[in-house]
Amino acid sequence: MPTQANSSEPPELGLSGRKIIYDEDGKPCRSCNTLLDFKFVTGKLTGAEGTKPLSAQAPAECLEKLGTGTVTSAAIGESSSKAYPKEDPPDVNQLGRASWTLLHSVAAKYPNSPSDTQKQEMKQFMTIFSHVYPCGWCAKDFEKFIKHNSPKVDSKEDLGRWICTAHNEVNEKLGKEKFDCDLWKKRWVDGWD
Amino acid sequence: MPTQANSSEPPELGLSGRKIIYDEDGKPCRSCNTLLDFKFVTGKLTGAEGTKPLSAQAPAECLEKLGTGTVTSAAIGESSSKAYPKEDPPDVNQLGRASWTLLHSVAAKYPNSPSDTQKQEMKQFMTIFSHVYPCGWCAKDFEKFIKHNSPKVDSKEDLGRWICTAHNEVNEKLGKEKFDCDLWKKRWVDGWD
Repeated sequence: MPTQANSSEPPELGLSGRKIIYDEDGKPCRSCNTLLDFKFVTGKLTGAEGTKPLSAQAPAECLEKLGTGTVTSAAIGESSSKAYPKEDPPDVNQLGRASWTLLHSVAAKYPNSPSDTQKQEMKQFMTIFSHVYPCGWCAKDFEKFIKHNSPKVDSKEDLGRWICTAHNEVNEKLGKEKFDCDLWKKRWVDGWD
Repeated sequence: MPTQANSSEPPELGLSGRKIIYDEDGKPCRSCNTLLDFKFVTGKLTGAEGTKPLSAQAPAECLEKLGTGTVTSAAIGESSSKAYPKEDPPDVNQLGRASWTLLHSVAAKYPNSPSDTQKQEMKQFMTIFSHVYPCGWCAKDFEKFIKHNSPKVDSKEDLGRWICTAHNEVNEKLGKEKFDCDLWKKRWVDGWD
């Protein structure tokens, strides 16, 4: 069971049960870990968060909630002369949700009969996406997926299903339920009613 | 004051006061309008939503809440043999938030001293982004911004400030407060404490 990070050795596992990801400079990576684990490993857990380690058997959705919701801090504070909502950078879960929202929506607006230029640009976009995505290990997984499953860009339907399949690969890896890709248009284009 | 869309002429203005955006096929565009306006123009407002038109003087943040929060429906329902949370496709505000989260985070992870390949790919990524972004008028605005402000890709700092400036252009257009770009690293890289 992991405990609050206060020894000289950086911990390998976080409270979520996931491996802690460190950047090349040895610092914990914010966009590659859950917020809970990032706070844990940087010694920033406060009060009950730090003294109540989570059971490794806790359901994934509870751990995710803790990683993105419960301990998210966003207070109004003074910075320079202006007051901003002090939102912290997104953790790995927030970043993932935001990015899937964009990718599925890009497919939803892709033409039914794209031009050659549009096809080429979409392939390039997905490839570069897998190079610049801010969570390194997620980016590598996506790059690997693309190598084995070249982006299907011949139509909206093809692209929508391709992204749905890519998302399901990640869902499977994270122990989440897979989505029925036959329903992708209801979820991302037309709505359910 | 706009009223529930039930005449033969498609309305020009939504309840939010924004112009309703239609796709080329004449249908209202979901990813280019707020959810409130989309429901309004497709005649899907229910109960109080439809009978209580909003004052044009209502604060922008209230209208935004109505557009993305209050009337968002996400119920658990049966589809095929499985039960899915019936989340609807994102509206223009949800899509915007998700995409800015990704773009700022991409800058946060961009190298301090990128290689020539990385610089070239980042320029391509931003350019293609402005072609494939699912809200057409937003995409055109971003394309125009890029034409007048070539992506600054020489370092993390350059890219972070460039995206901050791009975001502020949109904030200004939407009547939102601009962000002090001197603080971009606190918001998107390091956090506030």
